Amino acid sequence: MEKLNTPKEPAIPMRRSEHSETDAAEIEAFLQRMSFGYLGTGSETAYPSIVPLNFVWHAGAVYFHSSRLGQKVKELKRNNAVTFCVADEVALIPSYFTSEKLACPATAFFKSVMVYGRAVIVEEVDEKVAALSAFMQKLQPEGGYTPFDISDDEYRREIKSVLVVKIVPDSLSAKFKFGQNRNEEEWIRVRDGLAQRGKPKDAEAVQEMEKRCPFH
Amino acid sequence: MEKLNTPKEPAIPMRRSEHSETDAAEIEAFLQRMSFGYLGTGSETAYPSIVPLNFVWHAGAVYFHSSRLGQKVKELKRNNAVTFCVADEVALIPSYFTSEKLACPATAFFKSVMVYGRAVIVEEVDEKVAALSAFMQKLQPEGGYTPFDISDDEYRREIKSVLVVKIVPDSLSAKFKFGQNRNEEEWIRVRDGLAQRGKPKDAEAVQEMEKRCPFH
Repeated sequence: MEKLNTPKEPAIPMRRSEHSETDAAEIEAFLQRMSFGYLGTGSETAYPSIVPLNFVWHAGAVYFHSSRLGQKVKELKRNNAVTFCVADEVALIPSYFTSEKLACPATAFFKSVMVYGRAVIVEEVDEKVAALSAFMQKLQPEGGYTPFDISDDEYRREIKSVLVVKIVPDSLSAKFKFGQNRNEEEWIRVRDGLAQRGKPKDAEAVQEMEKRCPFH
Repeated sequence: MEKLNTPKEPAIPMRRSEHSETDAAEIEAFLQRMSFGYLGTGSETAYPSIVPLNFVWHAGAVYFHSSRLGQKVKELKRNNAVTFCVADEVALIPSYFTSEKLACPATAFFKSVMVYGRAVIVEEVDEKVAALSAFMQKLQPEGGYTPFDISDDEYRREIKSVLVVKIVPDSLSAKFKFGQNRNEEEWIRVRDGLAQRGKPKDAEAVQEMEKRCPFH
């Protein structure tokens, strides 16, 4: 397992430190499970630039591929400081788990990872092949294709023409919010509410709550 | 149904016009179904600012709530030009649907909506209540709370303290990619492959393909 670059001071400090996730294996497992994330690049327009794209976390970096044209490549060539955000909403927590009356306690449990780093266009063929192979192993684990091979004419053409970009992290922060800020009575009501509701991802939410429980 | 502001020239022109979605009802149904999106604000650091958050599309704008502290509020007060992105990956399309050998045809079918607009802090109490009510109706449709009521002491305190932000669109663009760029033979292979695979969202992907089919 690669070592994650998680300095004590993230690029943008988080106020709610009780939700911070610092376990590299937990963060990597999440990045491996999520198929796409959101790339922010320094915008050339009045509006911030965000684009969703498939990615793989490989050898301590985010890798994605792209055509050579288009706005995001133009922007990251001009300014290589980028942000990559991956988030998953695991459960919506209804207000009635903890309040008979008010709507305000409604919230969401989620995992999110922010990578602040430098976008680098990968030119070296072996690194391109390794990244594309990792990408396919993640997103098409069942196989069904001939492995990338630079000595094959068709693959060589494709590998040369596709743009592979890596984001080398300057810092990485993760927020896994699963009720760590609750008092014990509320925590139990939410945990029991999720266990009884039984939506597809509620069992996962309960497991994440218990893993991070401040009381037990 | 509110009229969407969809000018012919989006803030960032898209190259693949065959994937553009222009039907306001389709776009609104998507925004209603998706519980969270990604807000980009003009960053005060070297790295772009992105934050995932729950939202509601209401009265022709994106609304979300927030505490009064924190980086995103600071940034949108300083520069109100923001981007809000909502995306859903409906199906990963494996390479072997269309190629016996190469990995390269692997792709994803998805819906994404980009809102480029101006962030406005909602000060007027009736609009705050309407937005918070729409937010709850979307994210907690089963109810289980007393409706917001400004004459109730507890609610009045909460409504006054919470920050409600709306993003008034300057432009909005949507990309719904479901094989519109394929030739007919490939299109049929992908459609049949999805119909046979039968993962949870594959039926939706087939339906979206057929709705946008360039051949039939």
